[in-house]
Amino acid sequence: MRMYDLIIKKRNGLTLSNEEINFMIEGYQNNEIPDYQMSAMMMAIYFKGMNADETLALTMAMVNSGEILDLSDIDGIKVDKHSTGGVGDKTSLTLTPMVAACGIKVAKMSGRGLGHTGGTIDKLESFEGFSTDMTSEKFYTQIEEVGIAIMGQTKDLAPVDKKLYALRDVTATVDNLSLIAASIMSKKIAAGADAICLDVKTGSGAFMKDEKDAYKLAKEMVDIGTGAGRKTIAVITDMDQPLGNNVGNALEVKEAIETLQGHGPKDFEELCLTLGSYMLILGEKANSIKEARQMLLDVIENGSALAKFAEFIEAQGGDKCAVFHMDLLPKAQYEIPVLSEKSGFVSKIACDEIGICSLILGGGRETKESVIDLAVGIKLLKKKGDYVKQGEPLCIIHGNDMEKIKLAKDRFLKAYDFSETEIAPTQFIKAVLEA
Amino acid sequence: MRMYDLIIKKRNGLTLSNEEINFMIEGYQNNEIPDYQMSAMMMAIYFKGMNADETLALTMAMVNSGEILDLSDIDGIKVDKHSTGGVGDKTSLTLTPMVAACGIKVAKMSGRGLGHTGGTIDKLESFEGFSTDMTSEKFYTQIEEVGIAIMGQTKDLAPVDKKLYALRDVTATVDNLSLIAASIMSKKIAAGADAICLDVKTGSGAFMKDEKDAYKLAKEMVDIGTGAGRKTIAVITDMDQPLGNNVGNALEVKEAIETLQGHGPKDFEELCLTLGSYMLILGEKANSIKEARQMLLDVIENGSALAKFAEFIEAQGGDKCAVFHMDLLPKAQYEIPVLSEKSGFVSKIACDEIGICSLILGGGRETKESVIDLAVGIKLLKKKGDYVKQGEPLCIIHGNDMEKIKLAKDRFLKAYDFSETEIAPTQFIKAVLEA
Repeated sequence: MRMYDLIIKKRNGLTLSNEEINFMIEGYQNNEIPDYQMSAMMMAIYFKGMNADETLALTMAMVNSGEILDLSDIDGIKVDKHSTGGVGDKTSLTLTPMVAACGIKVAKMSGRGLGHTGGTIDKLESFEGFSTDMTSEKFYTQIEEVGIAIMGQTKDLAPVDKKLYALRDVTATVDNLSLIAASIMSKKIAAGADAICLDVKTGSGAFMKDEKDAYKLAKEMVDIGTGAGRKTIAVITDMDQPLGNNVGNALEVKEAIETLQGHGPKDFEELCLTLGSYMLILGEKANSIKEARQMLLDVIENGSALAKFAEFIEAQGGDKCAVFHMDLLPKAQYEIPVLSEKSGFVSKIACDEIGICSLILGGGRETKESVIDLAVGIKLLKKKGDYVKQGEPLCIIHGNDMEKIKLAKDRFLKAYDFSETEIAPTQFIKAVLEA
Repeated sequence: MRMYDLIIKKRNGLTLSNEEINFMIEGYQNNEIPDYQMSAMMMAIYFKGMNADETLALTMAMVNSGEILDLSDIDGIKVDKHSTGGVGDKTSLTLTPMVAACGIKVAKMSGRGLGHTGGTIDKLESFEGFSTDMTSEKFYTQIEEVGIAIMGQTKDLAPVDKKLYALRDVTATVDNLSLIAASIMSKKIAAGADAICLDVKTGSGAFMKDEKDAYKLAKEMVDIGTGAGRKTIAVITDMDQPLGNNVGNALEVKEAIETLQGHGPKDFEELCLTLGSYMLILGEKANSIKEARQMLLDVIENGSALAKFAEFIEAQGGDKCAVFHMDLLPKAQYEIPVLSEKSGFVSKIACDEIGICSLILGGGRETKESVIDLAVGIKLLKKKGDYVKQGEPLCIIHGNDMEKIKLAKDRFLKAYDFSETEIAPTQFIKAVLEA
């Protein structure tokens, strides 16, 4: 078998076999296939696509390139959750203790990542002492005893995906849905869960700006998960404005706790209830959405979800007092309101721009080396459809540097559009895809 | 400027500017742009193409990557000729002395190359002592005094083309007409001629199997030549059966001499007269095709073309006696006729297969290291449209190894198709393209 022939085949629009895809991925991992052939292949795939069989074969070849976690010693059905990411996405913080309080075991690998805010681990570091450094023994014990454990992403899961992604990143071959789906799912499958619940976001603050693309990506991922023998569900949700009201690490932790207390923002609560319901069904803890939803409302109402969150924070070395006394979380020096220059109904929020405001304030990473300021961020006071009078505050900027606050404020004001007439509400949960 | 942005631009179907193409080619030559980005770009070009301006810019960037020969010290208009290659293509051997005898100065760089037979230089080495090793001083003097000189291709002409071609060759990005045209024309333009006559072949023995593709390639090359300020003409000719009757190095030299003597095969003679006429017009030695054709017929008739050939062979150290006594040329040990197993009109000859028979006999190079057997080859006795009785010879195989002869014979027989009814003659000269 020769890589050259595989490139020609794909270039001419033919289908690659399982064996051919394994040859290609193994050869690339072993440096037997050079970057320049792989990048030509990736560009051919960009133009000619891959069918469901090819995408599954690619995913499994990447899964098999590294360690595959074995969670079989942990009782019950292990359900993982993944979001394609967006602005103000603190879902894991709230959702994980909710489903754990209902009896689902959550074994999670999370990242730090680049972006507008830190990743889940950065956010959790708002709790003094919180750490994800642990042996795998402690990881498994904690899952059994607490029901939740979160570890940093190991480099050993689907390592060839990392190599391939780095190549795609510099050769303009990232944005192909099959390649994106395979990259995400290879890591989820290697992480060992029995079932996977996907949150695919769409809109101006999401990777998938276009709803049709989000739908296609969700379909590809559900097909891969199912093909790999994992029960998989994808929910497509709105990211055309920030999720909830708070953007920024400690600010998002606060909002996550408020939601566990039963008074979070409606859109964010709805997301947690929807994803949580499917996770309970996947984990066979409920038989219907209605039943699952009631169970989740109950664990909020009776405080057991919040207690589970505190237990988890403590188990990983964090100061659980801050769960109950949010003043103990990191706090910025300045809280500056941004006043609206216009009157009208908020018709549009350039969601990615709000993310960039958070980055400007110091809340995210531009490079791997950046240090995150956990305290800074933005608290939105007006969202789409809200009426605003000129001079009323649109948000409160939390910052530690007046220069940066000034820059963020100017950018923030440009992100809002107004209309004289009322705005039809957006549908927040757009679709649910099952195999 | 970043190569990444140029790849995205081309991938999205946009046009690259002159400046961007220069940046890309210079960066690639200097190893500042890595192979893996260039191969992704080549695949994007494969799918999205280049317009005439981009193709010209690419060609000129490659021309400027190396030495550009200056032939201005040689009097008159220097006319170069190029063939896209085929089976039995000995055109340069006959055409060059024909036009030189009419007063055109021919400064030629030729290759050895891989293929069914050797290149022009290999064929000329059928003359004992013939050599292309010479100083550039001798090259220019010989052109002035004899009218013809042939040198080996220097590595200094369009060197980045060589690097880029090697990359395309292993990444399945060779077959794009703009890239092919730019590659050929960059070397022709760097070789310094004032005018260029192109022989673009089409059919089963040509690189361009399809006539429409040949036409498009010819158009791209004429546009490039014209854009670079060189008068350029392309003739599209048939390669759906071997050119002339002889395939193999010394056998082709014999046929070239026979044609200079006035009794060559009709198709080959016609090709030399057609290309030669355009060369005389490009070189301003004739005002019309009719006048040019008569001049060429005259130099055959009066023996001056043959004399010019002998003079040229001698000037480069070859034994010119062999021009007049062809028995002195390399001769194979065995001459084995291949008898037809069927009766009928020859309806089809798989031209590339005849080439492979020559390769099997040892007449061509499979790898750069292969040693060519100049004596071997095939002399066709029947061509398309000819009637053959079962048991009549279709060809004579000239070989030095009975094993190889057996293999070539079996393959040869499969290359012929027969029809019970007469076959309409193929049009040999298909089109002429001028700027």
